[in-house]
Amino acid sequence: MDKALQFANQHQQKFIEELKHILRIPSISTLPQHREDIIRMSEWLKVHFMEIGLNKVQILPTKGHPILYGEWTNAKNKPTILIYGHYDVQPADPIEQWHTPPFEPTIKNKSIYARGASDDKAQFFTHLKAIQSYLQTNKSLPVNIKIILEGEEELGSKNLESFISKHQKLIQANIALVSDTHMIGINQPQIEISLRGLVYFEINIQTAKQDLHSGTYGGGVANAANILTQLLNQLKNSQQKILIPHFYDQIKPLTHTEKKHTHTDINEFKKNANAYHYISEPGYLPHTMPKFRPSLDINGIQSGFTGIGPKTIIPSQATAKISCRLVPNQNPAQISHNLIKYLKNLTPPSVKIQITQLSQCNPVNISPQNQYIKKSFQTLQTTFGEKPKFSREGGSIPVVEILQRISNIDTVLMGYGLPDDNLHAPNEKFYLPHFQKGIEANIRYYQAISQL
Amino acid sequence: MDKALQFANQHQQKFIEELKHILRIPSISTLPQHREDIIRMSEWLKVHFMEIGLNKVQILPTKGHPILYGEWTNAKNKPTILIYGHYDVQPADPIEQWHTPPFEPTIKNKSIYARGASDDKAQFFTHLKAIQSYLQTNKSLPVNIKIILEGEEELGSKNLESFISKHQKLIQANIALVSDTHMIGINQPQIEISLRGLVYFEINIQTAKQDLHSGTYGGGVANAANILTQLLNQLKNSQQKILIPHFYDQIKPLTHTEKKHTHTDINEFKKNANAYHYISEPGYLPHTMPKFRPSLDINGIQSGFTGIGPKTIIPSQATAKISCRLVPNQNPAQISHNLIKYLKNLTPPSVKIQITQLSQCNPVNISPQNQYIKKSFQTLQTTFGEKPKFSREGGSIPVVEILQRISNIDTVLMGYGLPDDNLHAPNEKFYLPHFQKGIEANIRYYQAISQL
Repeated sequence: MDKALQFANQHQQKFIEELKHILRIPSISTLPQHREDIIRMSEWLKVHFMEIGLNKVQILPTKGHPILYGEWTNAKNKPTILIYGHYDVQPADPIEQWHTPPFEPTIKNKSIYARGASDDKAQFFTHLKAIQSYLQTNKSLPVNIKIILEGEEELGSKNLESFISKHQKLIQANIALVSDTHMIGINQPQIEISLRGLVYFEINIQTAKQDLHSGTYGGGVANAANILTQLLNQLKNSQQKILIPHFYDQIKPLTHTEKKHTHTDINEFKKNANAYHYISEPGYLPHTMPKFRPSLDINGIQSGFTGIGPKTIIPSQATAKISCRLVPNQNPAQISHNLIKYLKNLTPPSVKIQITQLSQCNPVNISPQNQYIKKSFQTLQTTFGEKPKFSREGGSIPVVEILQRISNIDTVLMGYGLPDDNLHAPNEKFYLPHFQKGIEANIRYYQAISQL
Repeated sequence: MDKALQFANQHQQKFIEELKHILRIPSISTLPQHREDIIRMSEWLKVHFMEIGLNKVQILPTKGHPILYGEWTNAKNKPTILIYGHYDVQPADPIEQWHTPPFEPTIKNKSIYARGASDDKAQFFTHLKAIQSYLQTNKSLPVNIKIILEGEEELGSKNLESFISKHQKLIQANIALVSDTHMIGINQPQIEISLRGLVYFEINIQTAKQDLHSGTYGGGVANAANILTQLLNQLKNSQQKILIPHFYDQIKPLTHTEKKHTHTDINEFKKNANAYHYISEPGYLPHTMPKFRPSLDINGIQSGFTGIGPKTIIPSQATAKISCRLVPNQNPAQISHNLIKYLKNLTPPSVKIQITQLSQCNPVNISPQNQYIKKSFQTLQTTFGEKPKFSREGGSIPVVEILQRISNIDTVLMGYGLPDDNLHAPNEKFYLPHFQKGIEANIRYYQAISQL
């Protein structure tokens, strides 16, 4: 391992030049005109996989963009790690707000600025460079490693589930490892041990064949917007309690210790949110809500006349998008069933209501006592000099949920970004000292896992 | 009077040819490219006013389209009638749904089809033809008549109030007379004795500087759409009671007799509304609500993401348009004040709320015992052979409210259209037997008023 670490340190400049090369390829997955860049990116990675010594390297097709696969599986009787990353990036708009060209990587104040720098090119590249350093110096790895790089993460990983279902045997592993998240600050690592799940719905209300004149009919005919707001209002009370029947039944309350060991910071939360008004359930503070509790939000609503000035109509149609974030143990399918039944029961029978589920994702939990988590704790502490904090994430990461649900593989989220990396925004960057330390941490982690 | 009636009958064909002429002019007020047609229409009417024997004929400017004025005021010690009409029309879109060209009047099944036929060209023309018939045969009128024809009714009569304020002396009269409404059916007249008023608002809610991610923040930050729907829901309860403080305080309940003498027809209401669901306060049926009670409707609402698919945001802004229809004695200014105060009190202080009033109109009441109403009752009964029914209208007619508020002039609404005249829609028409009877009714009404 020491030789691998030494190699990695000696070749930092070369590694950064290679990173610049992949940052120059605008592999934007959401824009069809960049399809060729996606292909160019995947072809380059295929060659690079082979150059660093991976075996069975292949570009596997999906219904969308292809997935890169490579492995090194000659460590007999050792655990297998499945590394996941994504080679696609967000569009660069609004381009005029970039201080340097988004696809011409520029180093300033120890950070490299480019679209995709933190999300996720520099991050998955720490693994390619860790593997390379090991194989160059030891001719072998201490563990078995499989790696998949996806090209549609920014499109919601829409073909990943069918890919994983189809290639279950190929990707079988003891643990998954993802570097696509951020640390709390410079040299302060964190480990995510919980992600919220999601159910997302569109609700459509229709009360008449066409909009009606509010003078001629106002007071005598149902108003789709009024009916919809009445329904939405019965989803949550003023104490922020969600009123869907049995909504909270499956939640195991966190212990005092679990809460205490979760990283929370109210100043950080308020600074990032920049909101005028915060909410919470009794017994919780706003910044702990996304970490500990499920939520329900209206994501969008539209009905009637929304142009300039007055128009005196009674809308006949109204539509809303709503979603719940779910905490571990809540079952999206059951909650979806209860929500639909609850809303339909509240709707007058002669009003037409249609509820369509648009998205669903299980919550994810991994114990801090899990041996792979413990090893990542030690590795990160050794590398960055600070004890990592445990974190519960309010959002979802599709790959983590899919791997757990389909293949029963837990994921260690060991990310090296920073909170101000400007993901999905102009002037995305990655802090280069974390690039070097990320490679080191990966080398140490592969070694640590080999002892399990 | 008999000679006037005889003249009118003998000249029907000629009158219809003249009507066709004005229907051929596409005097669409809402489209700037028809500005010249508006001018052409007003010039033609000016000449025609003079031809039929009106005095002081002039085209009076406003900030928008001009108003035609003419008078005949030589009936000493007799009452003065102010006749109002409008020479502008709605656009003809969607033009492909017209069976005959909208500006080439076509007679079919006793009706004349053209844009503006019923709204309002044939209707105000019945007055020009009645005046002409009288003056041709008697050299004088039995009453004093002033007439104004507006060119912006389809634009919401936006310059009418300042015109009336400015020309109070010119338009001073004992009663106003408007033919711009419809009868209940062929030969079944009605007289409107009440119009609802209106207050219309736009509400804006802002809860953060920008939309936030529903994973990272859901449950901990206020959601503009949730806050707005909560507010809207506190405007009306499930019994359709409006919850704005003091909202009902000024309403004088209608007597049993008043209710009994109001025309209501549940089948007609449901057939025209074509709604799936009807509502009413306890003690009222849906079809009587717009006639007897005030109402509150959401006219439009918009917040967050309303495109296709799921987008997991917490909207930072939400906006709604709402309006109340008011019944006689309710004061729009007071209700506006109470509504704004009520909603602001319900809003958490750290949430930004802005409430803008977009429109306001007083309710209008005229007693069935009013002598001008009594005369119109007799006149319509004599002309059509059926007793007119008294009607309370759910909508507002700006000119009626403006004349009452600014100049203290009540209005008799004596309209000759039919409910299926397709106002503002393709294939607008006017039933020609009502053109003839309208002229007759006008002649009889001028005569009847002269006896007051």
